[in-house]
Amino acid sequence: MALNNTELDEILAIHSKNVGVLDVKADMDVESRQDLGKAYTPGVAALSKIIERNPGLKDKYTISGKLVAVVTDGSAVLGLGNIGTAAGLPIVEGKSLLYKDLANVNAIPVAIDQVPVDEFVQTVKNFSNTFAGIHLEDIAAPRCFEIEEKLKQTLDIPVYHDDQEGTAIVVLAGLINAAKVVGKNLKDLRIVINGIGAAGVATARLLFSIGIKKLTLVDIHGVVKADDSDYNKYQRKLAKDINLNISGQTLDNVIDQQDVFIGLSAGDVLSADQVKRMSSKPIVFALANPLPEINPEIAQTAGAQVIATGSAQYLNQVNNVLVFPGLYKGLLTYGIKQVDYKIEEVVAKALASMVENPTSDKIVPGVFEAGVVVTVANALKTFAG
Amino acid sequence: MALNNTELDEILAIHSKNVGVLDVKADMDVESRQDLGKAYTPGVAALSKIIERNPGLKDKYTISGKLVAVVTDGSAVLGLGNIGTAAGLPIVEGKSLLYKDLANVNAIPVAIDQVPVDEFVQTVKNFSNTFAGIHLEDIAAPRCFEIEEKLKQTLDIPVYHDDQEGTAIVVLAGLINAAKVVGKNLKDLRIVINGIGAAGVATARLLFSIGIKKLTLVDIHGVVKADDSDYNKYQRKLAKDINLNISGQTLDNVIDQQDVFIGLSAGDVLSADQVKRMSSKPIVFALANPLPEINPEIAQTAGAQVIATGSAQYLNQVNNVLVFPGLYKGLLTYGIKQVDYKIEEVVAKALASMVENPTSDKIVPGVFEAGVVVTVANALKTFAG
Repeated sequence: MALNNTELDEILAIHSKNVGVLDVKADMDVESRQDLGKAYTPGVAALSKIIERNPGLKDKYTISGKLVAVVTDGSAVLGLGNIGTAAGLPIVEGKSLLYKDLANVNAIPVAIDQVPVDEFVQTVKNFSNTFAGIHLEDIAAPRCFEIEEKLKQTLDIPVYHDDQEGTAIVVLAGLINAAKVVGKNLKDLRIVINGIGAAGVATARLLFSIGIKKLTLVDIHGVVKADDSDYNKYQRKLAKDINLNISGQTLDNVIDQQDVFIGLSAGDVLSADQVKRMSSKPIVFALANPLPEINPEIAQTAGAQVIATGSAQYLNQVNNVLVFPGLYKGLLTYGIKQVDYKIEEVVAKALASMVENPTSDKIVPGVFEAGVVVTVANALKTFAG
Repeated sequence: MALNNTELDEILAIHSKNVGVLDVKADMDVESRQDLGKAYTPGVAALSKIIERNPGLKDKYTISGKLVAVVTDGSAVLGLGNIGTAAGLPIVEGKSLLYKDLANVNAIPVAIDQVPVDEFVQTVKNFSNTFAGIHLEDIAAPRCFEIEEKLKQTLDIPVYHDDQEGTAIVVLAGLINAAKVVGKNLKDLRIVINGIGAAGVATARLLFSIGIKKLTLVDIHGVVKADDSDYNKYQRKLAKDINLNISGQTLDNVIDQQDVFIGLSAGDVLSADQVKRMSSKPIVFALANPLPEINPEIAQTAGAQVIATGSAQYLNQVNNVLVFPGLYKGLLTYGIKQVDYKIEEVVAKALASMVENPTSDKIVPGVFEAGVVVTVANALKTFAG
């Protein structure tokens, strides 16, 4: 989706006018000695002494109780690949803006150099006292798996990778309703996932965790198998856990009679002929951005019954922005420290339930539909810490 | 300066009401697909590609061009000592609030664990792409010297330690005018500095750099000498550079005929008798907080001609808050990458010049006096990068 020059100029003007799209806001005025005594010394000395005795109280009396760090290293930005740490900043600043505008969650962008995994984890750990939660963004696989795993073990605040959990949740939400539209049982669906990076692994894991067992995984080296050394340990472990007996090596080999195609890969990798070879009433989630795995009109002509993309250009936009603002609002509101499969499932179901009568044209709520954030946040109440 | 229960309750209420005293502010609304396209994808993808080609442009198009990190490890908080990382947060959040309220500088608190110096430096370096400048705060000496030195070598953004440079600048500003009040030549002053920690070392260094040579340094082990292994390498190097022949081991041994006492140490260490033994018209800066090195009334009775403290309770409040908001405003406005002695001197002179006719009662502008921030910021114009 290329921008024309006028659009580009407008975007550059918007983002340069105030140097970025975020500001810091003071919640109190300091205009007198009395104010200074309350905002700074001697007032803060009393606060510091209270926190010295009970460090957890920092989350009651300082910004660390509400501030989310949206962290990237720029190693897998959108569909652009590894464009460097600095170039990742507009993405994490944009996400921080959405947090504020959509859910009134306070978040700031944090760009971290592309240092080795252990150093990256240590860096985040070393500044983690500053934050109420970590949102990881656009970090390449398999690096992102290790980073998230280690951070979750190390920190006692939520760690959430939008490209993993966010995608998994919104895909499941869409799938719940797509299954209803085509009249098939969710857990019986035969599903091929094309693209087993951060999003693909997390989506497969979530689907598997709720009982969808007929999952076929395909990536650049063909079908992912437990003993295929072309794949990393996370991919191999996933294939081992799923343990599905698959004959065939390529997407083309395995597409016959699939109920669902989930594309988390790249543009134009699914053909009309392949859609025709899927089961009756096939479901096609072509989520690559900006170019989907198959043009939705071509998929429809080929017989796809439900079609979703990641783009606002088409019906059924399956996009993480349905998830993360409300999810973090809920995590912070209810003091929840970990995002697990159960939480992912509950959020997906809550999102799906917003569409009362799912149809081919509508399986998920719109990104700007009223109630999305509140529905997601409220769904977490049952996990209150 | 102990707070009574009513004051403490009010402070706790202020700081807990919104969870801290800062918020993130969105500079644009996102209420439609069109907005989303400008704030996030596809708009930010264009920005990211521009920054990929020219990483420096991040400072034009993202918050990293204006955001200051106010960093502490909680190892030397006010007069409270090492109270831990979490307990340092109210201090750096308070400073961030003052940045916003007094100078409209965007700053956020960052608490970093008390890890070894090299790891601390690496942590800051790893996230430094996020920020336009680093403000170090309440980090213990000599750790703070090493951290600042290494960060200055590593980063291409300003690194400023408020307890060092901020104190040095405001002390020099006060001293310039105090010398006028007592009719002595600044560079000829005989000065004893009591307390050679972060602030003491930086103040001595600045005074020495502008040509004040008769500096006697005293700390817990007595007079600091170049070969005294009780002192760290920064203190010894300073004594070596000053190279003043001093007989006497204690403050009491060296106080006779001093023109100036600068206390950056602890409460109640200077006696009335010692003030009486100083030269004619002695100048006493008793800057320890909350309790000064000598009660100002006692110092006055003993003959001190000019008396300053760090507190708002007395005349002549020599406090860093006169410096840091305007200083960072100037650094960011004029694209200055390093704070050196020349900048410190120019800022001190600008602050001093705000008091047209210095008297014993007024050697520095008031903290809330109009024009302080602008005067300091404008003084940096000559160093524009």
